[in-house]
Amino acid sequence: MKFGGTSVANLERMRVAASYVKEEVDRGNEVIVIVSAMAGETNKLVETVNSVSPYFDAREYDAVVSSGENVTAGILALILQDMRIPARSWQGWQVPITTTSSHSSAQIMDIATDNLNAKFQEGLKVAVVAGFQGISQENRTTTLGRGGSDLTAVAFAAKFDCERCDIFTDVDGIYTADPRIVFKARKLNRIAYDEMLELASLGAKVLQTRSVQMAMAHQVPVYVRSSFSRKPGTLVCNEDEKMENRTISGIAHSRDEAKISIISVADRPGVAATIFGALSDKGINVDMIVQNISESGRTDITFSCPIEHAPIAKKSLLDAKKDNLANFKDIVLDLEVCKVSVVGIGMRSQSGVAAKMFAILANEGINIKVISTSEIKISVLVDRKYMELAVQALHDKFELHANRITPK
Amino acid sequence: MKFGGTSVANLERMRVAASYVKEEVDRGNEVIVIVSAMAGETNKLVETVNSVSPYFDAREYDAVVSSGENVTAGILALILQDMRIPARSWQGWQVPITTTSSHSSAQIMDIATDNLNAKFQEGLKVAVVAGFQGISQENRTTTLGRGGSDLTAVAFAAKFDCERCDIFTDVDGIYTADPRIVFKARKLNRIAYDEMLELASLGAKVLQTRSVQMAMAHQVPVYVRSSFSRKPGTLVCNEDEKMENRTISGIAHSRDEAKISIISVADRPGVAATIFGALSDKGINVDMIVQNISESGRTDITFSCPIEHAPIAKKSLLDAKKDNLANFKDIVLDLEVCKVSVVGIGMRSQSGVAAKMFAILANEGINIKVISTSEIKISVLVDRKYMELAVQALHDKFELHANRITPK
Repeated sequence: MKFGGTSVANLERMRVAASYVKEEVDRGNEVIVIVSAMAGETNKLVETVNSVSPYFDAREYDAVVSSGENVTAGILALILQDMRIPARSWQGWQVPITTTSSHSSAQIMDIATDNLNAKFQEGLKVAVVAGFQGISQENRTTTLGRGGSDLTAVAFAAKFDCERCDIFTDVDGIYTADPRIVFKARKLNRIAYDEMLELASLGAKVLQTRSVQMAMAHQVPVYVRSSFSRKPGTLVCNEDEKMENRTISGIAHSRDEAKISIISVADRPGVAATIFGALSDKGINVDMIVQNISESGRTDITFSCPIEHAPIAKKSLLDAKKDNLANFKDIVLDLEVCKVSVVGIGMRSQSGVAAKMFAILANEGINIKVISTSEIKISVLVDRKYMELAVQALHDKFELHANRITPK
Repeated sequence: MKFGGTSVANLERMRVAASYVKEEVDRGNEVIVIVSAMAGETNKLVETVNSVSPYFDAREYDAVVSSGENVTAGILALILQDMRIPARSWQGWQVPITTTSSHSSAQIMDIATDNLNAKFQEGLKVAVVAGFQGISQENRTTTLGRGGSDLTAVAFAAKFDCERCDIFTDVDGIYTADPRIVFKARKLNRIAYDEMLELASLGAKVLQTRSVQMAMAHQVPVYVRSSFSRKPGTLVCNEDEKMENRTISGIAHSRDEAKISIISVADRPGVAATIFGALSDKGINVDMIVQNISESGRTDITFSCPIEHAPIAKKSLLDAKKDNLANFKDIVLDLEVCKVSVVGIGMRSQSGVAAKMFAILANEGINIKVISTSEIKISVLVDRKYMELAVQALHDKFELHANRITPK
């Protein structure tokens, strides 16, 4: 059971979280609880570190920002004890959770099971573990990056062969679209790992891509639910455990995209590698890439990236040109675009989804600027002002509001 | 170099602390820095834990309250790095600092030197270590109790055979009396361990008794100074390194004392043991004990304790009477007393100090209620309303304001 920052924001919320844990214990289960820092605490620490120096040592950064989870773990253990549940806390070094040495974005290498299992055998019912952290082989505290506590939770569920990994958050599951944009958006009872992966990487912020990947790799059923309501959540599971095999499962969107076109690039081998190598070196998260048909040995390359990366992207491209690493005529930035995607494993077996999507958008007078597809998703860049309209129209015309198949 | 909570209260203060460290590095020294939590942080965590349950698990308490020091250690390391000083942080488990398992009041068993020394050999200049904490043999985080970071500092200084242990605090040294009470109080350039021990246990809050004891045992010169001013501080050192061998070094006071008299106790062996055993079981800090001359097989016993312990002390004595463990007629509480003491190693060789002290107090019309003496100190309980008058009169008549001997 993993509780995110808003679910442990204060003592009152932690007591609610503890009551969910108690229910599982009362059912006869042993529980591993993974906790985030109290909402806001980690950000406060990050701000402090940033204000010391923008060029901080990531090892010290990790030592500082991991402290919030330690506090929550100890306090939640105390609350559980106060409810007469045998509980204790573990910090990353105590388990130990060993990770790579990539501080602030470490990957979990291994989780030792001996310590926790020994205590469970002695009668412990709940192990409360600080999420988001581990230790490197150099014995320094590491953190796992954004969404790290979810990753900790899925990794423990995999390693301890848990029945289920419950992710408690402040939304009650995965929806067919963002309910703030689509009034008729419907909560999914089940979603396949593949679909969740696409939705996660497309801006549905409930679960991070890395956690879904790990859950898929280790076949961990992940149940996303709210600690603020008793409504059923969404189970992320295998395709074949999913009853509602509709063509489309959901519409995702990402508001703040930038479209960057490099005009008249020499069209010869190695040019794309140079360009995207330069962008990658600067840590720019390039998403969609489109290359136009070459005419007379020159071509245009268009790509999208998060809007906040656009200025650095432009600068690094101009630097590459100056250093004669890339030869192009011009760069055109469009900072007024967004990305809208339809996702569904049913697309594998059903053709015509792309055509239908484009027709729906055309019907609303929405011009498509870039298209990118995968086996189970179609994404388009459109003007940002059309984002809500595009999401609503797609949700409506693909009839995602209709709950035609009774869920399990 | 140890920096207390007010000396690392915020980034600005931490930068000042770092500048003191830099001076030592610039002098060619390697430095171990011990840090407290930012002022107020630990209290906030303690309050949170207390609000969960008054009967908390001390192991979880320690896991929670130790986090403040970890944050300070990381941030101070970052500030030092930003000043181009090779620095890194260590938490208790990383050193490791091994302690007993008496959570919240653990004793340091050992400090490993290999890790830090290896890094110093690689060119590290400053090791920033989280104070107040360690780990038990069960691999749980422990804390050392009140004044724990001072203890960490002295222990590191002893273990690493350091030249000196500088304790940076918000006062600029040890005074002949509390300067808020005695306008003419004079800062001591040097004070002997023995004297500091008496002053520490008598309510001069600058250094805790345990730290002074450890410094004395390991012959660690402790230099108490302020991080808020450039004034020279006070060196706590061996008697023979002390130049100013005056009879009296200082006047200490403790405002909130209670005097408890047990009237008409059976005067036979074992009675005192029963009474003070019962008080000790309740964690009551009994200080002075006086027993009157026995008449007709009954006696009166008077003792003092911190005023906040008085109600529990009374209750446990009445319980002992009810259970027939102690037989006495009555208990009389006096909650309006304070303790005033004169301290000085010169008292060993000079008689008449007690007589002079009593005469000075009598001259001011101050009645002495209880007297207790050691080799280098005389303490009296007097009515609280006379506290300032008593301290001032003693300071004046023993001429402590006069700096007759030029300090080294």
